[in-house]
Amino acid sequence: MKKHAIFALAQTELADVEQELASIIRSRVDLVTDIGSHLLRAGGKRLRPALYILCAKSGKPDPAVLTPVAAAIELIHMATLVHDDVIDNAATRRGIATANARWGNHVTVLAGDFLFAKAFSLIAVHGGNEALRILTGTICAICEGEISQAKDLFNPRQTEEDYLARIGNKTAGFIAASCELGAITAGLPPADVEALRHYGYAIGMAFQITDDLLDVTASSEQIGKPAGNDLRQGVLTLPIIYALQHSPQAGELRRIIEARDMADEQVRRGIAAVHMTDAVEYCYSRVSDYLATARRVLPSSLPAEVHASLRNIADFVGLRKY
Amino acid sequence: MKKHAIFALAQTELADVEQELASIIRSRVDLVTDIGSHLLRAGGKRLRPALYILCAKSGKPDPAVLTPVAAAIELIHMATLVHDDVIDNAATRRGIATANARWGNHVTVLAGDFLFAKAFSLIAVHGGNEALRILTGTICAICEGEISQAKDLFNPRQTEEDYLARIGNKTAGFIAASCELGAITAGLPPADVEALRHYGYAIGMAFQITDDLLDVTASSEQIGKPAGNDLRQGVLTLPIIYALQHSPQAGELRRIIEARDMADEQVRRGIAAVHMTDAVEYCYSRVSDYLATARRVLPSSLPAEVHASLRNIADFVGLRKY
Repeated sequence: MKKHAIFALAQTELADVEQELASIIRSRVDLVTDIGSHLLRAGGKRLRPALYILCAKSGKPDPAVLTPVAAAIELIHMATLVHDDVIDNAATRRGIATANARWGNHVTVLAGDFLFAKAFSLIAVHGGNEALRILTGTICAICEGEISQAKDLFNPRQTEEDYLARIGNKTAGFIAASCELGAITAGLPPADVEALRHYGYAIGMAFQITDDLLDVTASSEQIGKPAGNDLRQGVLTLPIIYALQHSPQAGELRRIIEARDMADEQVRRGIAAVHMTDAVEYCYSRVSDYLATARRVLPSSLPAEVHASLRNIADFVGLRKY
Repeated sequence: MKKHAIFALAQTELADVEQELASIIRSRVDLVTDIGSHLLRAGGKRLRPALYILCAKSGKPDPAVLTPVAAAIELIHMATLVHDDVIDNAATRRGIATANARWGNHVTVLAGDFLFAKAFSLIAVHGGNEALRILTGTICAICEGEISQAKDLFNPRQTEEDYLARIGNKTAGFIAASCELGAITAGLPPADVEALRHYGYAIGMAFQITDDLLDVTASSEQIGKPAGNDLRQGVLTLPIIYALQHSPQAGELRRIIEARDMADEQVRRGIAAVHMTDAVEYCYSRVSDYLATARRVLPSSLPAEVHASLRNIADFVGLRKY
């Protein structure tokens, strides 16, 4: 199923969001506008604003709230990606040169801060305090998740539990918040707000595990960045953690990780150690569990087309191969 | 005059702000708390929260607003400093190791984001939309100012006007916003809010020009960072821009700047070219002009002790030698 198909119900609103984004990143400093436009052109799945909009369409959302809040959600996501790329010294994202590769870390950290500030200014004017509270809490959790990840780089003693807590903070919390905000914008009762938050969290966990799995299963061309990149950078994901516990080559994998500085050959052998186990199947089973939860917690009282769209997204995340 | 003397009227409230800061930076991730504590211990002038509090004391500020908003202002300042240090690859600030020198850029960018998010969450709960609008606008301007600065590194063709616009965005706008917010918290009439904003802007311009001047007049020990650092990094400040127009050694200064990679000897000769002119006197005269404006725009209707404190601050900025 194609991306535009799963977000079909939100298509008109997503087009408005693109316009809002293009307008908000304009600055009197040309370089700021250039960087913002580059980031917008680099695109992305717009998963978070799409989920926000879909959940909001459970009610009759005010367009004067819907578009700016959706745009703010994407701006925050863009800002975290920009800072991530600086942190990772990434040269490309989705096959396109990163802002830091093109303009340097210097300006890119600031461009990220600019996007954060623009996002909060949109929320301040259109979203209200509840939205702001949820989103600031989300950003704190993302930073905590990323800092935990940084602390645990190349640490082969981390557990599946550490990993799940980290991606909960880093990814799932934000997707949960997007759904929760949508439910609030729709004016749903508290139990449904909580259920959609839960749905978003489960989708987010499934999404991140899939993403991490692709790093050891897909080719560089498919994912638009070098395969095995997480391992090389010392970010130990679920398939690696599983292999450290179950692979006949666990000892070698541990030594490769602890030696830190991996050439292509070490990365290749590390990934080979993963494929000597059922790590891939195991990760897919965890993804399936989360998606089953996502489907189960969806309130049956949602409008039929919203319910169907949110179910479709759960199906799509499970099918994603790159 | 000592720092504690000029902020005497805000002393009790500033102590509350320190407590609030110590509490807000606590995180379930120990490393986040460690970095936050390190940044708090590194200290700082607390100029922005002090000005906010002093202006707020023109009325009867609600402590439930005053402390968190003052803390949020300082958190935003801390976040921008942390990101600045990453950008500059600075090893020390105020004589103490920077967070990036101690923990790496990786974690430090995220710690800055964490502080931003905490600041906005305080403002969301306690400050209201007006405060949020003012502060997000301020951060956008800071980013624009810093990005302009980055674009104009080692550019000897920049003018005094470019410089003034840049430090207006980078520094004076934030100090203006702190005073404006204080006036709003005090419930002052719009004309006085505007006047205190103007006062803060003038103080901020004087403050930044003085700071930039110290880079070419003070010793490394006095300013707690290497003297001539701005020039070495290609940040052309008012005394340098003035010397490029007036020094008999302007040609050499331009060549040193355009060659970019400066050894100590080039920095020394660059600064010597500045001292062949009346650049220092000229900068002090600009500082005096701004401080005269600051004193002039202070509303005479302010409570006598607030008025006296704000005048004292203007006097102090003019006397600062390091």
